[in-house]
Amino acid sequence: MFEQLGLIGCGLMGGSFALAMKRAGLVKRVVGYSKSPSTTERARQIGVIDIEAPSALLAVSGADIVLIAVPVSASEATFKAIKHLVKPNMLIMDVGSTKSDVIDAARKGLREHIGSFVPAHPIAGKESSGVEHADSDLYAGRHVILTPTERTLTAQLQKAEEVWTALGCKVQKMSPEQHDATFAAVSHLPHMIAFALMNAISGHPNGKEFLSFAGPGFRDFSRIAASEPKVWRDILIANREELLQQSKLFQKHLQDFEALVTNGDVAALEKLIAHASSTRVNWGISYKSNK
Amino acid sequence: MFEQLGLIGCGLMGGSFALAMKRAGLVKRVVGYSKSPSTTERARQIGVIDIEAPSALLAVSGADIVLIAVPVSASEATFKAIKHLVKPNMLIMDVGSTKSDVIDAARKGLREHIGSFVPAHPIAGKESSGVEHADSDLYAGRHVILTPTERTLTAQLQKAEEVWTALGCKVQKMSPEQHDATFAAVSHLPHMIAFALMNAISGHPNGKEFLSFAGPGFRDFSRIAASEPKVWRDILIANREELLQQSKLFQKHLQDFEALVTNGDVAALEKLIAHASSTRVNWGISYKSNK
Repeated sequence: MFEQLGLIGCGLMGGSFALAMKRAGLVKRVVGYSKSPSTTERARQIGVIDIEAPSALLAVSGADIVLIAVPVSASEATFKAIKHLVKPNMLIMDVGSTKSDVIDAARKGLREHIGSFVPAHPIAGKESSGVEHADSDLYAGRHVILTPTERTLTAQLQKAEEVWTALGCKVQKMSPEQHDATFAAVSHLPHMIAFALMNAISGHPNGKEFLSFAGPGFRDFSRIAASEPKVWRDILIANREELLQQSKLFQKHLQDFEALVTNGDVAALEKLIAHASSTRVNWGISYKSNK
Repeated sequence: MFEQLGLIGCGLMGGSFALAMKRAGLVKRVVGYSKSPSTTERARQIGVIDIEAPSALLAVSGADIVLIAVPVSASEATFKAIKHLVKPNMLIMDVGSTKSDVIDAARKGLREHIGSFVPAHPIAGKESSGVEHADSDLYAGRHVILTPTERTLTAQLQKAEEVWTALGCKVQKMSPEQHDATFAAVSHLPHMIAFALMNAISGHPNGKEFLSFAGPGFRDFSRIAASEPKVWRDILIANREELLQQSKLFQKHLQDFEALVTNGDVAALEKLIAHASSTRVNWGISYKSNK
């Protein structure tokens, strides 16, 4: 289907895409570039890429498909770096967890080539990052959300859908705004909360002792707090508007709980918990049936 | 070891204790009472108890060990109801998730018999409640925290340690205050946060759609939000002082995150996340090695 994949960012996400594309027979060659030369070299050594490129621009040279898998904060610089070798038929995608900011970056960086860019967010990941953990199965069976803008070319959008579908993904489309609001709610805010709770506990004079008694409920609740600092620093800032709005809404609900607890209002408190509990139970049922 | 267990509250926690005691050969007879006669009957039918008692008082009659496994809010009434048949050698325990309030209730309800009461919190549970889910393995391998007061009789405390140890539990002792602060941090506050987040999302105009995109991170984070409303209503109110104090501390930390996100302070934000992440990673390592 494609001759050459230009991979910019040979980490977990990018490396897994390269492996999946090769395994599916969708690409003949992978030319890769990472900011750290040792990562690029390692990616070639373990067979994630075929050829090391000395720059992002040269990774794009001759490619008919380009995947940008860099921290979101590096998006604009990356788009600018590759602009001069972007060709009209090229399909360019990213894998970022936020979309409005990446689209802004693409507008500024790619300019008249913006139509070739199809913003993509595959809902997949691992707790361990790095090319060593690249896995050709990472995307199989997962959702991928495409957030085309009014300038996205339909030919590129169609190709993007075909690629992810061929990798075994379920492709859905939504607007960038809708995407960012959704993931603020179900991912970015939960991460920020989990980070804040870990810091609140470890900042408590008896925090160490508290933690020694934490059980399986805490283990699951706090699992996302172990996420990669650089990745999440970028995501929280990139989606700040939606995130802050929803964080305020969350605190309002938390303060509703505090008020009822303070007043010992048993009946109203039970009602609030019952609402949360049934929402979670029903979500769990539909989540399992969609798997 | 014991002749007769008086079980007050034949739900998941009480029923599992009765089954475990019988399987371990630690008790000859179990006399049980539940507020709902149909629960008591069901407990007898499925072999969790041997004899149905028509009242809490009669469940205690002739017992040398008593387990109170009722919602924490029913503690005081239960202690009052059994007081007249408490004998000096009797070991009385509870299984509540909060301790200071249960000790208050025992002081008021048991009065001069308070020395026979050993407050206990086995760190065990299931998402599904009710006697049907009673399981003789529920407590095996789990931690049990005993929070004796200065009036607890050493003979009873020793017996309590022996019982839980014989059931395969790891027994630890701490003060009631220390216990309640610990579990506010690692259990009660996380529950309240998870409840509040579920309600914030479901109260959002697009909440239903948001939830349809939630993935495995959200699944784990929100699992505890599915907990039983009556049980958690009681726990949050029973431990309100510590809970509210720690909730304020958590919100302070959350607002630290918000400020850095608002200002786009990349370096400081990364530092806060890195602190949370390494705390969680280190906790996870010691949690696994303690299992």
